[in-house]
Amino acid sequence: VNSGVRIWLDGETASDPGLLDRGLHFGDGLFETLVLRQGRIRFRAQHAARLADGCRRLAIACDAEAALSQAETLAGGGDALLKLVVTRGLAVARGYAAVGTERCRQVLLRYPLPTAVDEERVPPTTVMLLRATLGENPLLAGMKHLNRLEQVLARAEMRDSPAFEGILCSSSGLLASGTMTNLFLVDGGRLLTPRVDRCGIAGVMRAIVLREATRLGIAAQEADLPPAALHSAAEAFLTNARLGVRAVTQLAGRALAAGPITLQLQRQVASLEA
Amino acid sequence: VNSGVRIWLDGETASDPGLLDRGLHFGDGLFETLVLRQGRIRFRAQHAARLADGCRRLAIACDAEAALSQAETLAGGGDALLKLVVTRGLAVARGYAAVGTERCRQVLLRYPLPTAVDEERVPPTTVMLLRATLGENPLLAGMKHLNRLEQVLARAEMRDSPAFEGILCSSSGLLASGTMTNLFLVDGGRLLTPRVDRCGIAGVMRAIVLREATRLGIAAQEADLPPAALHSAAEAFLTNARLGVRAVTQLAGRALAAGPITLQLQRQVASLEA
Repeated sequence: VNSGVRIWLDGETASDPGLLDRGLHFGDGLFETLVLRQGRIRFRAQHAARLADGCRRLAIACDAEAALSQAETLAGGGDALLKLVVTRGLAVARGYAAVGTERCRQVLLRYPLPTAVDEERVPPTTVMLLRATLGENPLLAGMKHLNRLEQVLARAEMRDSPAFEGILCSSSGLLASGTMTNLFLVDGGRLLTPRVDRCGIAGVMRAIVLREATRLGIAAQEADLPPAALHSAAEAFLTNARLGVRAVTQLAGRALAAGPITLQLQRQVASLEA
Repeated sequence: VNSGVRIWLDGETASDPGLLDRGLHFGDGLFETLVLRQGRIRFRAQHAARLADGCRRLAIACDAEAALSQAETLAGGGDALLKLVVTRGLAVARGYAAVGTERCRQVLLRYPLPTAVDEERVPPTTVMLLRATLGENPLLAGMKHLNRLEQVLARAEMRDSPAFEGILCSSSGLLASGTMTNLFLVDGGRLLTPRVDRCGIAGVMRAIVLREATRLGIAAQEADLPPAALHSAAEAFLTNARLGVRAVTQLAGRALAAGPITLQLQRQVASLEA
């Protein structure tokens, strides 16, 4: 791999090939955040499908099903929060171009699972609208890829705020997503969520909520939502694999109650798997 | 660091703290590509200034001057191509937010320097316009940060092409940059280059060319350039630290000669340091 290169880490000669990982150099890879409950990855099939889709779009040679299966085996039972990182692999040559012979690398992290929130009794959840925006690129949109500096800077903007989450607009000025969640609004009895075809991540929990809403007879759709939609929404909630459905109780300065559609979807999602 | 986490790499238990590097997980860092000639980093002060600016914008605690100085010392003389990667450091906690106590990590790679091109006798250099675009984000624009998936995908689009470089437009449809170079056009005797305040990298060589053009009495400016500017340009060249000033001899299907302004700037830049 990359013959002729010499490597130093923090001033010392280094031989770790991981220092040539294209994940480090370019963010050339993907990740999944997974909830392990009683030794099983929740919504494993959906996570595998999204990872497989990302690998296809980035032409990363990785068997997503096998990766998720191995992660479940390695994690070794119990409850945990897992992060699976899949990179294209070590740089075979200098430069951005992938050679095509890279072998993907898989990093699995296991964290203690934060104490579960009683989904019927939501803690106060304040959400602010951020100044930071998300750049738009259809080639990257939807993927849970490793280029996450926008999210790092968005969280930095929240440093002095008590807000639980910050909402980003796209560079076109439409609502996009939270820094670590997808956003749902209820307006006129309809469930609305920003599209993820120009920026943002196609969350596994987002897809499940859209599917379950339809099953429950709730009109649900992806939409172009201006920031003003935050002010007119009757209900709002956030989704990700870890939080499930988290009701927003203060949205851009306005108090909200966890409304009936939010509570209905919380119960529905919680009931889906152990 | 990040207590309670367990780590596996490619299915095996791992203890390398580098697997928690925020550079790997988020692309949370910066890099510099440096030419070492006779043991000295060319344009070291300019590289240090850009790295310092990036560290300031990302709030990464790193002494850029010291990092470049150490890189020069470690590289150990001779001619080489260096890549210095500076990340925010190891993840102290889960999630995007930096805690502020991270200690930056520095990875230095030394590659053989490709054989120098005689700058008066430019090899054929074909440049194509790509379909891939660059997302726009003023918070990231100009920085040489580690979120480079756009460049990886742009190079993938060039895979079956003999082109040396591909030009990307911004998502607004303006010319932005090459995948690994900045772009300059000469039109009506004026030197023009895309702005880098919404996307793209503020190249060290780009800044030097703009400065030297002014010194030579060549009208030079950053501009909003539509793709059609590729078709009307009398001259075109690419810049980066490794290539210096590289004349474009075929631009979006049209043959070009290395013109007088290009050649004048090539000579000028080549004469600046050993």
